[in-house]
Amino acid sequence: MNLEQIINQMHQEDLDGIMLLKPENITYIAGFRPSSDSILLLNDKPLLLTSKLDINEALEKSSIPVEELQSLKDVKKKIQLGKLGVENSMSLQTYKKLCKDFKIELTDIIERFRVLKSKTEIQNIEGAIKIAENSVKNLSLSISENKAAAELEYNMRVRGSIRPAFETIVASGTRSSLPHASTSSEKIERPLVIDWGAIYHNYCSDMTRTIVNSEEQEEVWEIVLEAQKDAINTIKPGIKASYIDKVARSVIEEYGYVDCFIHSTGHGVGLEVHENPYLSVKNEGKFEKGMVVTVEPGIYLKGKFGVRTEDMVLIKNRAKILTDLPKKLNFHEC
Amino acid sequence: MNLEQIINQMHQEDLDGIMLLKPENITYIAGFRPSSDSILLLNDKPLLLTSKLDINEALEKSSIPVEELQSLKDVKKKIQLGKLGVENSMSLQTYKKLCKDFKIELTDIIERFRVLKSKTEIQNIEGAIKIAENSVKNLSLSISENKAAAELEYNMRVRGSIRPAFETIVASGTRSSLPHASTSSEKIERPLVIDWGAIYHNYCSDMTRTIVNSEEQEEVWEIVLEAQKDAINTIKPGIKASYIDKVARSVIEEYGYVDCFIHSTGHGVGLEVHENPYLSVKNEGKFEKGMVVTVEPGIYLKGKFGVRTEDMVLIKNRAKILTDLPKKLNFHEC
Repeated sequence: MNLEQIINQMHQEDLDGIMLLKPENITYIAGFRPSSDSILLLNDKPLLLTSKLDINEALEKSSIPVEELQSLKDVKKKIQLGKLGVENSMSLQTYKKLCKDFKIELTDIIERFRVLKSKTEIQNIEGAIKIAENSVKNLSLSISENKAAAELEYNMRVRGSIRPAFETIVASGTRSSLPHASTSSEKIERPLVIDWGAIYHNYCSDMTRTIVNSEEQEEVWEIVLEAQKDAINTIKPGIKASYIDKVARSVIEEYGYVDCFIHSTGHGVGLEVHENPYLSVKNEGKFEKGMVVTVEPGIYLKGKFGVRTEDMVLIKNRAKILTDLPKKLNFHEC
Repeated sequence: MNLEQIINQMHQEDLDGIMLLKPENITYIAGFRPSSDSILLLNDKPLLLTSKLDINEALEKSSIPVEELQSLKDVKKKIQLGKLGVENSMSLQTYKKLCKDFKIELTDIIERFRVLKSKTEIQNIEGAIKIAENSVKNLSLSISENKAAAELEYNMRVRGSIRPAFETIVASGTRSSLPHASTSSEKIERPLVIDWGAIYHNYCSDMTRTIVNSEEQEEVWEIVLEAQKDAINTIKPGIKASYIDKVARSVIEEYGYVDCFIHSTGHGVGLEVHENPYLSVKNEGKFEKGMVVTVEPGIYLKGKFGVRTEDMVLIKNRAKILTDLPKKLNFHEC
């Protein structure tokens, strides 16, 4: 994160300051993630306002000055006159209580910077990938979905992931046809979709593997893999995100399953597990070096089964695959 | 949840419909928690709009009709003319994209209903408490904070809690003086604060125990317990939430520690782990039968140690304590 560049950009866009409330944006600027409601005022003299619950840790860890968040009245006094940038995610209530007397403009400057990862950010993402990958090895699969998820999350937690990056999916049998299924107390069947991720220094990982065991499942698995490979091989700087979605979708269409691919092809990953850029039909934005995204086509046959394979890639001259697990996991089956 | 009552209240407040986006509010009305962005239009013909990712599960589980969320244009067409209630939490971006052509009014009707728990909701909260309580028994404490949190979360996960209700706190030694400390890889020292909760059928639990082992720590522990007992014994319908905060605070003040009690005395618990009513100095609202709240005074001695004890109570004629763990936990120490 280069604070000077961000402040320059802010001035270029005619903003005199930006108010940040979103924890991930605060973390990006201050290098510290508050656990309670906090406000970061970004201008030529950035300031993090946080509650008594976090102030001691903030004073120790924040890269910008910290003061105690006393009252909204006090915050208002600290806002510079001029045009104030506020986040798209600011709630109507917060706007009403805090900002309605100011001249505001919605801005996504911070999110635009966050899209391009620094070396340290990439190292953190790689750390989160390593935790997730090491945690899935030797996972027992003759147990319930709940228990397998519990073991996987335990393995990530002891490796330092303070929480799963998202609700771990262990969905087997017909339940694999639900892309976002919660785990059940049922014993794991086939196929088995595991979609999991860890957190390392506030950065996320996200990956999926599917284990199949019939000819029909294997066939679908191969199609998904072909779609993923074609998509990954097409990624390079300058290519539109929507085009990558189209590439993956066209492989699946070729085999007659296009209606069964019911989500977009991928998304950015960083401080949030789902962030820009989205590899969706609607995103006309172009890839740039330094972006980190998932590529995760899937085919879901209603009431039968589903297959998804997901890896994370870093965009350099081409896509560099960051995840390092074999596409066919060798699980401990006993 | 009584839909008819809610709709009546909506009409009484001159709203022709309410648009819900907050997952907990959608869950409250539909009895189903979508995993992807969804919109619930509440009027005389309630409708849940959800994405392809969730639609099959929604069709099976939602108590109100479900349709696929196609586009915002499509949503706009479905909004009844008249005055539309929107949530305080609606983002400025969503407002701009979806609601700016409508006559809107911020409303917290759903949150006001959610404050009073039904029999089923109380059963779910009790289920979440039971999971959390059973999961802490026999926890080994001669390990690292990370590992103890991992074991506790594993125990909750195998019992069906799809995630911890919040980031589990296992903070020991000087780190116990940080009310929201993340776990470390250090071996557990004393005192030890454990603050944890589970989820059962979307409802949360939240409790804290502190284990002390010196005279000074024991003394502080006794003060916190006295503050908690006095607060709980004062709770009854009609009493102001701020008064309960005052009762707890005055006990701690009496012993000279008032500046070390740096958060409010408690909060409501339900579909969210922190929700109304807040037991804070600012909340002039009165307790009513059917509310479920935590009572959790704490004393934090900067750089030394901290103590907090937290239980959950249901407000009936008096406060009925829902949590059932001894205040002094008998942990497995080997």
